[in-house]
Amino acid sequence: MADDWQNAMDHAVALARRAGEVVREALQHDRKVMTKSCSVDLVTQTDQKVETLIIQSVKEKFPTHRFIGEESVAAGEACVLTDSPTWIIDPIDGTTNFVHAFPFVAVSIGFSVNKQMQFGVVYSCLEDKMYTARKGNGAFCNGEPLQVSQQQDVKQSMIATEFGSSRDPEVVEKIFSSLKNILCIPVHGVRGAGTAAVNMCLVASGCVEAYYEMGIHVWDVAAGSLIVSEAGGVLMDVDGGELDLMSRRIVAANSRAVAERLVTEIDAFSPLRDDAPPLKS
Amino acid sequence: MADDWQNAMDHAVALARRAGEVVREALQHDRKVMTKSCSVDLVTQTDQKVETLIIQSVKEKFPTHRFIGEESVAAGEACVLTDSPTWIIDPIDGTTNFVHAFPFVAVSIGFSVNKQMQFGVVYSCLEDKMYTARKGNGAFCNGEPLQVSQQQDVKQSMIATEFGSSRDPEVVEKIFSSLKNILCIPVHGVRGAGTAAVNMCLVASGCVEAYYEMGIHVWDVAAGSLIVSEAGGVLMDVDGGELDLMSRRIVAANSRAVAERLVTEIDAFSPLRDDAPPLKS
Repeated sequence: MADDWQNAMDHAVALARRAGEVVREALQHDRKVMTKSCSVDLVTQTDQKVETLIIQSVKEKFPTHRFIGEESVAAGEACVLTDSPTWIIDPIDGTTNFVHAFPFVAVSIGFSVNKQMQFGVVYSCLEDKMYTARKGNGAFCNGEPLQVSQQQDVKQSMIATEFGSSRDPEVVEKIFSSLKNILCIPVHGVRGAGTAAVNMCLVASGCVEAYYEMGIHVWDVAAGSLIVSEAGGVLMDVDGGELDLMSRRIVAANSRAVAERLVTEIDAFSPLRDDAPPLKS
Repeated sequence: MADDWQNAMDHAVALARRAGEVVREALQHDRKVMTKSCSVDLVTQTDQKVETLIIQSVKEKFPTHRFIGEESVAAGEACVLTDSPTWIIDPIDGTTNFVHAFPFVAVSIGFSVNKQMQFGVVYSCLEDKMYTARKGNGAFCNGEPLQVSQQQDVKQSMIATEFGSSRDPEVVEKIFSSLKNILCIPVHGVRGAGTAAVNMCLVASGCVEAYYEMGIHVWDVAAGSLIVSEAGGVLMDVDGGELDLMSRRIVAANSRAVAERLVTEIDAFSPLRDDAPPLKS
């Protein structure tokens, strides 16, 4: 059957595993760091090498497919989600972790058709955990089925989020006020793995009840979003509306009850959209 | 030789491994939660079971030794560090993680004589990482020697800390203001494993340049403090003075330069000391 995309997904899993080997190898001897938008927005040669490896291999096998890749977009390519079959790739989600050998580093590959995610693959390569989901077929970690936590009481919940890489005072202020509001609901605790993709897999696994963030990009969350929903979770915007993958805002939770409670505490802001036209210079 | 305490340390490593088995087993089917000081200060039967297992075994082997154990203190025993040989035990550091199956849960066993740490053992039991240090003999993870990061520039550093379990508005305010100051130095990022013991082992491993916290207890940091210093790191109080293990405040860093830079950004407060006399009722 052409339309279930199982072939493409099998290829994504194989590529994620190969990419993970490159990442693990590079961790031993090649973590030279460069910066992008600011001094804390990091990139390494390994990010670029892994993205090229994935895209070239997919192009050979699926020559008509399109791509949105973190490093390609950083290099000036358009970031527009169309109805075409599109691979949405973050070669290293958690580059700052990678630079410091902090133990959560993921390869994230999502695949969308008609703007709907068809499959998602997140390989947490230092933990050797392969998270996969295909639309309508459930979510798995190393082949074991995943299910979100059944906890409906936000006060018994663990929440994941990140500080992000912006140090703009207004952005930092809103990130901190949201975080303080949520911590003092009170919840059991707040954690952050340092990668959106792994945070979402922790929601799917039931280790945290919810993850929210403002400032992420579509390549950070595309694959994870399907893994969460196929594990029984819910996705929404930080204002409680429908999730828009290009909006750079997300709440991923085990339940509508927990997600909607968090939304009331989030001091929302709107980062420049991923598909915004480039600024004229 | 009686005074190098190698015998006692070997026993501590064996006990930490046995305790870790109990924790991993309990994670599958026994995470019923109780609360202590407030709704987010959690304890489980496994904490109590593991502490009893460790203390009983040590008492048989070393009948003259003393103990400071998290759950014994919670049950009303004194928390005083004397010159006697003393085992300082946190049966589960990261109880909130344990309750949620979040992947960092540690057994922490420190041993002090004349108020000086002689050895420290931290077993991160879901990762199966056994961190050990003996005074003057270096620090190790699963037998491999550890060394702190050589990064001296705080702006290239990753910092670990935690929000803690107090939701007292004044405490939360100081925790957030310290965190915001440090994030905006700016540093590469802020992470927290959810256990002080593991955070300190991450300093010793070079994955984060520093860890600081106010509100921890002596059993959270006793073992880790020796692991950090034996890996080449430095310890100090959050005001830059000498570390006092009973003061519930700590900075553990790869270098004096990074530690002293953090101290200038920390909005310090003084929790009730671990060895404070009990409040009269």
